[in-house]
Amino acid sequence: MSIIRINNIDLCVGSEDGVSLPFIHDACMVVSDGEILYAGSAKDAPPTLPSDEMAEEVIDGGGRLAIPALANAHTHAAMTLLRGVGSDLNLNDWLNTAIFPAEDRLTAERCRIGATLGFLEMLRFGVSACADMYMFMDASGEAAALAGIRACLARSVVGDENGDGGRLAESIALADAWHGAEHGRVRVMLAPHAEYTSTPKIVRAIRDAAVKRGLGIHVHISETIAEVEGCRERRNGLTPPAYFESLGLFDAPTLAAHCVAVTADDARILAEHNVAVCHNPVSNLKLASGISPVPLLYGAGARVCLGTDGAASNNNLNLWEEIRLMSILHKGVSGNPCIISPAQTFNAATLTGMRAMGYNNVGLLKPGWRADVTLIDRSGAHHQPLIDPAADLVYTTQGSDVYLTMVDGIVRYRDGQYPGIDAERVYESARAASRAMLG
Amino acid sequence: MSIIRINNIDLCVGSEDGVSLPFIHDACMVVSDGEILYAGSAKDAPPTLPSDEMAEEVIDGGGRLAIPALANAHTHAAMTLLRGVGSDLNLNDWLNTAIFPAEDRLTAERCRIGATLGFLEMLRFGVSACADMYMFMDASGEAAALAGIRACLARSVVGDENGDGGRLAESIALADAWHGAEHGRVRVMLAPHAEYTSTPKIVRAIRDAAVKRGLGIHVHISETIAEVEGCRERRNGLTPPAYFESLGLFDAPTLAAHCVAVTADDARILAEHNVAVCHNPVSNLKLASGISPVPLLYGAGARVCLGTDGAASNNNLNLWEEIRLMSILHKGVSGNPCIISPAQTFNAATLTGMRAMGYNNVGLLKPGWRADVTLIDRSGAHHQPLIDPAADLVYTTQGSDVYLTMVDGIVRYRDGQYPGIDAERVYESARAASRAMLG
Repeated sequence: MSIIRINNIDLCVGSEDGVSLPFIHDACMVVSDGEILYAGSAKDAPPTLPSDEMAEEVIDGGGRLAIPALANAHTHAAMTLLRGVGSDLNLNDWLNTAIFPAEDRLTAERCRIGATLGFLEMLRFGVSACADMYMFMDASGEAAALAGIRACLARSVVGDENGDGGRLAESIALADAWHGAEHGRVRVMLAPHAEYTSTPKIVRAIRDAAVKRGLGIHVHISETIAEVEGCRERRNGLTPPAYFESLGLFDAPTLAAHCVAVTADDARILAEHNVAVCHNPVSNLKLASGISPVPLLYGAGARVCLGTDGAASNNNLNLWEEIRLMSILHKGVSGNPCIISPAQTFNAATLTGMRAMGYNNVGLLKPGWRADVTLIDRSGAHHQPLIDPAADLVYTTQGSDVYLTMVDGIVRYRDGQYPGIDAERVYESARAASRAMLG
Repeated sequence: MSIIRINNIDLCVGSEDGVSLPFIHDACMVVSDGEILYAGSAKDAPPTLPSDEMAEEVIDGGGRLAIPALANAHTHAAMTLLRGVGSDLNLNDWLNTAIFPAEDRLTAERCRIGATLGFLEMLRFGVSACADMYMFMDASGEAAALAGIRACLARSVVGDENGDGGRLAESIALADAWHGAEHGRVRVMLAPHAEYTSTPKIVRAIRDAAVKRGLGIHVHISETIAEVEGCRERRNGLTPPAYFESLGLFDAPTLAAHCVAVTADDARILAEHNVAVCHNPVSNLKLASGISPVPLLYGAGARVCLGTDGAASNNNLNLWEEIRLMSILHKGVSGNPCIISPAQTFNAATLTGMRAMGYNNVGLLKPGWRADVTLIDRSGAHHQPLIDPAADLVYTTQGSDVYLTMVDGIVRYRDGQYPGIDAERVYESARAASRAMLG
């Protein structure tokens, strides 16, 4: 039994309901084989807990704040290789003159390098789990195993009347190889890319495979108004949520990225089927897609989580920027400064994201839950005088305040270092791969 | 003659016109008594330049990027003491139950402590100059002198039919004491707080004093729709810009904060009088005020700069969050991903802000300009593979990537340290002052 103690911390338990966000001063944690045995007040810790002497590792938290590690519920990790490519082009030019030609030069090896870079960046910013949708996903699985991050992999399936080019079969092989691998840290979902890149036949086949195999679905839904208008034309007036509902897609647990151009009826459909909506506010603004009506989605009872999207449209994987933006954007748009609370945002960035990816025992710092923990340094000028810990967490914290990220009881990032990984070498490989792709 | 050399850097000259944003690889800088003698390619440096041996200080840039330091053109520095107070209340409750009662307990000494904390935070995030509007401004001047930051001080003047309570006289005394002090690093402006907190008589008196003494004006304009509606009722249908124009306020060089609820006519007025509009996107969203129509302002020919507003409504003074948000927000709102360019945003965050405060030889890294320089570390995972330096600067950079901030040729922040200042002691004083104010 491997015991880790984290002493000398304050503790944010997380937000189970999006309403409360409890903090505990002068706390400690005890972790056994990756499972939290205790997380609470140091002075109330039961004497029966393993002591420092019995621990394999004792981490001095140095007064930092322990929080549940973050969940990045929509990304394309290997696209770090294209960070900054074609910025400030309109969407069509960006895709057609910058992104697609570079992606044509992707290889499994380049994807492995790019995904590794993306995972290291996420760990540095306190993320312990991500939903990664792209291609060459075996390479992403290898990268996740190396970095030690939780990754919920999905090979995006596109196709037309001529079929899907074998991509669903590839997805199923991916699931056979990786679903539940790395002690459950790597999972697999099936991914119809979007309404406009598939056919009803392809969507039905994916839906059937998912239900049969107990896999979840990861899909882009209603990212832009143009997508919705095109869908209505193609699908007898149906919006993307209504279209996918009509095909039974939501019979599998579904993670729907974007949902920018959604109506009240769409929100009702998404809520009824317990679809987790992944809000990507930075990417949606940068690509000029718009602003997802998150209060409308919450009002309908939908689940909301947070994602960075790929680095090519963000341009980083620092989920704290999404936390910050979700927490203020909807206030400004609605004219109501109380419309989104810190607890709601933090719940979206942690527990709801974890559940959307199928990590059902991750996202709270409570006994029996897995030890995905991030330590936040609040000693800098920008946190003083630290009056309200919830406001400080959501409105003030910088991604760079992350001192340590633990995934499943294992420290994967600490104070600029990734134990066992030569990050400089990864960066050099990424620069070389990027140069090769950009010609 | 005090010579400083900064070797082993890349260089971003800055953006003079909001269109170009030139970068120079393998560069160096030579600074003499705070003035830039050379900033350019290392291999093209003239042999007549002072050598390393002749320099009082040689800074190894370590391959980092040197940029013009940032200008925070609207803040209330001492409000760091109220960071996080009353978050997630509506505006009236926030002001009346949280902010105003605490401000009633302000003293000069507490303002000095709070402003010091604010200035240290800004220096840490690469800001070398700020426009600080609040009360007890002599204390802010003392704090600016201690921290070494450029500060353009303004005592906000409020009043009614019974007069301004001596606040204009106080402002003039402030100007006598501080305008041009600290080798020109401290300046003073006159500040009619806003249309709704003053009378035409007070505004005219401030205008006359400013014109007579050659001082600029710092004023809140059209922060909310409610403000504009109230103004129209009170001022014969005039909007705040039209009202202030009618009183001749803009005859003095004017820095107008917010301009959220402005019309095309307002934008024309602001442009005609060369008013510098300070965009505060984070604060405007958080307080649910809305989104300033920056593209409309640019279209009318207005000057736009950037500010954090106070820490109580932000909740930090990291101008990089404003840079990031300005660069993406208007794309999402307009549906046009090209509507604001990196050069435009960077110009707003530097040169235009400096000029709006009257620092006319600050904001570009060119010979003859003052040496306000920030060094950015781009070695982290989130900058790789660093394809496009302009996109990287605006969309990717974190405030915490700032390694060094030089103001007027003097290093005021470097790698977590403030030379000559015990930051921990400042933080402790700030915590004590904040506790005392919050009762």
